[in-house]
Amino acid sequence: MHTRRDFLQKLSIGIGAAAFTPFASGASLLYPSLQPGKKLKVALMGLGGYATIVAEAMKDCKMATLTGIITGTPSKIDTWKTRYGIPDKNVYNYQTVENIAKNPDIDLVYVTTPNSLHHRHVLQIAATGKHIICEKPLADTAQQAREMIAACKNAGVKFYVGYRLHFEPHTRELIRMREAGTFGAVKYVDNFMGFKIGDPAQWRLKKALAGGGAVMDVGVYSLNGARYATGEEPVWVTAQEIKTDPVKFADVDETVHFQLGFPSGATASCGCSYNFNYAERLFLSGEKGFAELKPAFGYGPIKGITHLGPMNMPSIKHQTAQMDGIADCILNGAPDPNVTGHEGLKDMIVIDAIYESIKKNGLKIHLPQA
Amino acid sequence: MHTRRDFLQKLSIGIGAAAFTPFASGASLLYPSLQPGKKLKVALMGLGGYATIVAEAMKDCKMATLTGIITGTPSKIDTWKTRYGIPDKNVYNYQTVENIAKNPDIDLVYVTTPNSLHHRHVLQIAATGKHIICEKPLADTAQQAREMIAACKNAGVKFYVGYRLHFEPHTRELIRMREAGTFGAVKYVDNFMGFKIGDPAQWRLKKALAGGGAVMDVGVYSLNGARYATGEEPVWVTAQEIKTDPVKFADVDETVHFQLGFPSGATASCGCSYNFNYAERLFLSGEKGFAELKPAFGYGPIKGITHLGPMNMPSIKHQTAQMDGIADCILNGAPDPNVTGHEGLKDMIVIDAIYESIKKNGLKIHLPQA
Repeated sequence: MHTRRDFLQKLSIGIGAAAFTPFASGASLLYPSLQPGKKLKVALMGLGGYATIVAEAMKDCKMATLTGIITGTPSKIDTWKTRYGIPDKNVYNYQTVENIAKNPDIDLVYVTTPNSLHHRHVLQIAATGKHIICEKPLADTAQQAREMIAACKNAGVKFYVGYRLHFEPHTRELIRMREAGTFGAVKYVDNFMGFKIGDPAQWRLKKALAGGGAVMDVGVYSLNGARYATGEEPVWVTAQEIKTDPVKFADVDETVHFQLGFPSGATASCGCSYNFNYAERLFLSGEKGFAELKPAFGYGPIKGITHLGPMNMPSIKHQTAQMDGIADCILNGAPDPNVTGHEGLKDMIVIDAIYESIKKNGLKIHLPQA
Repeated sequence: MHTRRDFLQKLSIGIGAAAFTPFASGASLLYPSLQPGKKLKVALMGLGGYATIVAEAMKDCKMATLTGIITGTPSKIDTWKTRYGIPDKNVYNYQTVENIAKNPDIDLVYVTTPNSLHHRHVLQIAATGKHIICEKPLADTAQQAREMIAACKNAGVKFYVGYRLHFEPHTRELIRMREAGTFGAVKYVDNFMGFKIGDPAQWRLKKALAGGGAVMDVGVYSLNGARYATGEEPVWVTAQEIKTDPVKFADVDETVHFQLGFPSGATASCGCSYNFNYAERLFLSGEKGFAELKPAFGYGPIKGITHLGPMNMPSIKHQTAQMDGIADCILNGAPDPNVTGHEGLKDMIVIDAIYESIKKNGLKIHLPQA
């Protein structure tokens, strides 16, 4: 007996990224499994800047729709109700959120609260029986991520991490080419993500809310990118921290370089910073060729070149593709492109080890497997 | 009183790279201080592949001329005599080389023997009273480099290291722009040099001749590049070695990543390999902009782009510019562009520490100053 999932998996193996890749057609995104009229009903938890980006991008979704909000800031409610047509009955705060369990207008909650609240909020939402996307980084530590995964498993809900790039065409094409052997065996990856951070009062610079600094917020892109550029899980990590502004970055890491070793012998030289621009890039060198995405990790447009020439993939709104893609997974059983909570845990294990190596002056840390 | 050296230094400060940059004009290179007819008479010591590259490039020199050879392989002599018009009296071997002292047809010896012979050969040549260029890396260790510098100083001869890129227009322009503040304060450098090495029998894979592997041969480009991209001397280094082919690379390092910290807080993420291609690059990110040379370190053409656009510098034969430039230093007192033996020593100090960090599993090594 062949299930729909089997069919999609075979399709994916047969024609590469096509089954998973959203095809841009004007502002619309078409999935092979698109079933018009059937939509995933999404609530956003934590109405900061990123929630607004997701909400705006969801206006173009074909398979997901924004139906609810959960916020601790009452002054934001009216604006969100008006702008996105959210009825009063779908508005929650952090005290009333448990009532979401009884609300059929919400299938999934996208947790976009500050990093250090992810653990608590994911446990809260899992208890309501709703599916979850949690923004990256999944948690402050791998142990927290394990608890979040266990809570979702016990509650029988699907649990995803907000790795939007796995729905981005250049990124998918790079992964497809690597899997197809276009680059030969990958030998070396060089990734960097960072930017010069502004407002010194923001939550990203407070460890109690952010869990850490550049590593947590942007280093996770370099790290996740090294995993999808190689298709392997790292077995060791070394890391170095540089702090040039101990006032602004009193609480969190400013710039960190880290290196990863993979079972095949491939290595990744990675970095991240809150204190400079221009360096964003994903690069891989294989036995038969190379790929470079530059920019590689921001909201787009992503640009890519390989030894075969420019990648010429469509530019799309990442969050639109992500939300339609997750909806396709949940509604239609489409296979997920490595964005489960377990993938988030794999990165948290490395992040734990990055901080351990920094504390130990760069010492090589051997990594447990997720 | 103003000396000619003062004048050139002021010129250099005033108009940037112009005073030091060779301007390509067809095959010829013009220096401000070019004095036709006055030429530096050069002998090559060690007639391997690189000596041939230098000899061919010197055909286009205006201020330097190949007049002699020193070789341990008698079978090469006839070919070299014929091809470059070298008379019998200017042909030496490693036993007769001390007689070069009495030969007025030789002003300078360019030592292009395998790395681990540099120390012995530089000491031999210094004793003859001839000026010296020694190919990079200067030696196997910083201690050897110090002894070589001392020997040259005692003998009253000029001692240079074969850092040809300091005579290359894109590299010079990058340095000029950095010194002019075009990039603002440099925050981050990301350099890689490497290639997949061929013939497993070559001397580069034998520690007794090469002193080490990828670090010695190509890592020195990443390292020297980090120093000229920042204009600073590193204060710490961490390093990691990866060996995927313990047969081919039984004797020497295959792939090494290393990281450098500078007094300003700038950092460099560097690497080198004998086992893959495509990754060659020098990148710097500053507060006001960026620069990328890609390729950055090979024999050319070097290509560069900055936040202001493509660099559009002339492509020249590096070794032609190098030999004319060194001749200009020696014959006319032109200031040298950071290619003295002392610059080679600075890199050897870091290379010593790279190997120490590797032995200590990535531990941060604080660097003594040269």
